[in-house]
Amino acid sequence: MGAAKETLGEEQPWAEVSPDAARRLLIAAVDAFAERGYHATTTRDIAGRAGMSPAALYIHYKTKEELLHRISRLGHDKALAILRSAADGEGTAADRLSAAVRSFVRWHAGHHTTARVVQYELDALSAEHRTEIVALRRLSDAAVREIINDGVRAGEFDVPDVPGTTLAVLSLCIDVARWFDVGGRRTPDEVGALYADLVLRMVGAAPERAQR
Amino acid sequence: MGAAKETLGEEQPWAEVSPDAARRLLIAAVDAFAERGYHATTTRDIAGRAGMSPAALYIHYKTKEELLHRISRLGHDKALAILRSAADGEGTAADRLSAAVRSFVRWHAGHHTTARVVQYELDALSAEHRTEIVALRRLSDAAVREIINDGVRAGEFDVPDVPGTTLAVLSLCIDVARWFDVGGRRTPDEVGALYADLVLRMVGAAPERAQR
Repeated sequence: MGAAKETLGEEQPWAEVSPDAARRLLIAAVDAFAERGYHATTTRDIAGRAGMSPAALYIHYKTKEELLHRISRLGHDKALAILRSAADGEGTAADRLSAAVRSFVRWHAGHHTTARVVQYELDALSAEHRTEIVALRRLSDAAVREIINDGVRAGEFDVPDVPGTTLAVLSLCIDVARWFDVGGRRTPDEVGALYADLVLRMVGAAPERAQR
Repeated sequence: MGAAKETLGEEQPWAEVSPDAARRLLIAAVDAFAERGYHATTTRDIAGRAGMSPAALYIHYKTKEELLHRISRLGHDKALAILRSAADGEGTAADRLSAAVRSFVRWHAGHHTTARVVQYELDALSAEHRTEIVALRRLSDAAVREIINDGVRAGEFDVPDVPGTTLAVLSLCIDVARWFDVGGRRTPDEVGALYADLVLRMVGAAPERAQR
């Protein structure tokens, strides 16, 4: 494991973050939070993991919470971008739902350390930051709900409870971060393909489509 | 939230644990681990929450890890009992899978604080204890896989990837502990009913059955 090997985008790890020292500190914070938990980690621990002094850390981040907020914000921005891109893409509702699940699963499998921190430490955010993150989560939820509603309207899907099914679809994908094992039997792409099939079944997509 | 309000069985909180002081310490440990994380919690914190001295704690638990192990063991025993009871129950595979999902979801919603500790702090267990817990998790997995295999054999289900679908079913139910909100719109029973329907769809159960 280890977030040092994880990239938030497709290329450089946390390429959005600059300068280099700020990025190294963020990677160190993800590793420390994942390993010991937010409350058991000090800014001194984080600086040490990044090979820096506590004073150097404070140039970039005033508090430990600021680091968590930055990690959470980047993670949630990325999640929303993935889901919006699928919702706004071409193709039938089934094509778009399948694309959303595949890329969302791939992200949670490929960045499971970051995703765990993002998902399990929400309570440690300040009230203001939590409100901001909850708003981003609502937008992610809305992107998936939109695809499902499109499918229902087009007669492609049969979904008695759209909000509940949306919740279940996102939950299934997010929990990949908990159980995914880099040394395990399935690659991120394989889990994505399996889950896309299962989700198309959940929304009652036409069988020939669900069994592709 | 607060594990103090949670019961592992149906009646008294952690009724399996005696004497009373040992039970109070376990409840305090669940609360502290859930709130601050395992590594940020000291045995002194736990004793304090239980209104006891650190010396009194050591009469019942030699280490903090012993407390975590006891919580994890009881939680996993309960999970396995729920799933075995459904697997060994009466009725068709669809009836039994539905019963398994309903009761497993109800447990994760009703005991979400305990379940989060049990699920997110596995890495903090000693190697020996982790091996024991992993064996219990394999048995839980086997109970669900058995029901799905029965359904496939009976021609009730259509499941191209039985291990993968088993994993997804358990994952969906377990993640309820992460998002379930006591003040939210859905009761544990309502989530259980929704998820039983979604899971029957995932296994390709006959539509008239999946849409009950």
